Amino acid sequence: MKIIKTTNEMRSLALEEKISEKRIACVPTMGFLHEGHLSLIKRAKQVADVVVVTLFVNPTQFSPNEDFAQYPRDLQRDSELCLAAGADYLFAPSAEEIYPAGYNTEVTVKGVSELFEGKFRPIHFNGVATVVAKLFNIIHPDYAVFGQKDYQQTLVVKQMVRDLLLGVEIIVAPIIRENSGLAKSSRNTYLSDEQKTQALVLSQSLKLAADAIAAGETKSAKINKIMHDNIEKSAFSKIDYACAARAKDLTEPEEFAHGEEVVLLIAAYLGKVRLIDNCLVTIK
Amino acid sequence: MKIIKTTNEMRSLALEEKISEKRIACVPTMGFLHEGHLSLIKRAKQVADVVVVTLFVNPTQFSPNEDFAQYPRDLQRDSELCLAAGADYLFAPSAEEIYPAGYNTEVTVKGVSELFEGKFRPIHFNGVATVVAKLFNIIHPDYAVFGQKDYQQTLVVKQMVRDLLLGVEIIVAPIIRENSGLAKSSRNTYLSDEQKTQALVLSQSLKLAADAIAAGETKSAKINKIMHDNIEKSAFSKIDYACAARAKDLTEPEEFAHGEEVVLLIAAYLGKVRLIDNCLVTIK
Repeated sequence: MKIIKTTNEMRSLALEEKISEKRIACVPTMGFLHEGHLSLIKRAKQVADVVVVTLFVNPTQFSPNEDFAQYPRDLQRDSELCLAAGADYLFAPSAEEIYPAGYNTEVTVKGVSELFEGKFRPIHFNGVATVVAKLFNIIHPDYAVFGQKDYQQTLVVKQMVRDLLLGVEIIVAPIIRENSGLAKSSRNTYLSDEQKTQALVLSQSLKLAADAIAAGETKSAKINKIMHDNIEKSAFSKIDYACAARAKDLTEPEEFAHGEEVVLLIAAYLGKVRLIDNCLVTIK
Repeated sequence: MKIIKTTNEMRSLALEEKISEKRIACVPTMGFLHEGHLSLIKRAKQVADVVVVTLFVNPTQFSPNEDFAQYPRDLQRDSELCLAAGADYLFAPSAEEIYPAGYNTEVTVKGVSELFEGKFRPIHFNGVATVVAKLFNIIHPDYAVFGQKDYQQTLVVKQMVRDLLLGVEIIVAPIIRENSGLAKSSRNTYLSDEQKTQALVLSQSLKLAADAIAAGETKSAKINKIMHDNIEKSAFSKIDYACAARAKDLTEPEEFAHGEEVVLLIAAYLGKVRLIDNCLVTIK
């Protein structure tokens, strides 16, 4: 596995692979890899000849009050994990490589990016869309694999790829959880052992709502109340949202139709740590 | 020369050329080709193995009150001209190919796009940046050739390419003029013969200002006044701008420094027809 630091080198190597008629899959990450990321790399290996993992803690998707500075970083450990998972390239550029001095261009996905996370993290998805466009412009991958953990992000990236005719097939891989049910996240490193137990309320709340849907519930207010009630009586201090929405576009009807695919989405604070989780269910 | 109508076919053919290690140059146009465009195609052939001319009257760069509907179109004539000029591919997609139903993504270049044309055509450069990004995402050219006639557009595209790491070398080719001095433009078809003579005021005004600079003038107010005075006494009914600006970023100092490269920019109305022209000069 080759570790690459510059845009020019990554671009040349990706072009060489293209000329050799290799299919490239890209796995964009912010590093501090866990089993969730490794499952994306394994998925990428199944579909493509060459896997490029990108590792870039993207400053433009963090607001000034967010955790950019303390976001966990460990390139040595990440590169060992990438190698073991079978990646061919680890592209780990500096901020200056990705944001040249004087940069002034932004990719904006309207609509789906303005809901849920977009309300609480207003600059987040512009930052995501812009950096993913840049990575795709360097690597020109055939595929890119994202985790369902950031469900709304997968919709934003799919919309951008479609709209900007990027020609990249977006693959979404399932959430990987601890045995306890806690969704794997680089930000779990912020949690104490006690908080890791308290955080199970999220996956439990999703399960309660999914059970209600399996039992025939179709009204979004009722589904949302199940999640809210369960989180409110827990150690979580603040709920940004705990909602059922249409999986395809995150719209929220009062009542879902039979057979409709729904995503249950939660973002909430445990102390100072903001956690998200989600699950997909089909209305009976 | 192959005429291509779909994004998928264009993408496949461009990839085949890449795999054959051919260097691709793209010449984005809105069709109704004139000698200006043909000079771009010839320049493209000098630098690359394969030349793709794109022909797309881009709806998103026209405001509702502008001339999108009446913009001249003649695919038959354009394809003959492209063939004669040595193009390898003419990519002439439908609007639905470039803007899939429900598109909701925009590329925004701030800064340089907000000046001059940006003040009078507020959505114009977002439309340009977005469509050029799309064309580059389909073709992945090594080079793209643009005309100096749309000087500000060349700065916007260069900034976008740099910021989004598109890896395309932007080449700017000189303005082609009639013997009379009138800059070639597809929109000249809107002008009567009398108006074509009246329109020479633009190139004459640029010449007067350039002469003043050659004679030692460095103050922008004085340079601008020379152009304004000359246009105001002509058949032109309205001046959007007639200004000297720094060629690199279109900023307008009160006084230019010796050796500074300056662009003289004019946009003005002759009857209902809005014409633009420009020239580059170096301060003595």
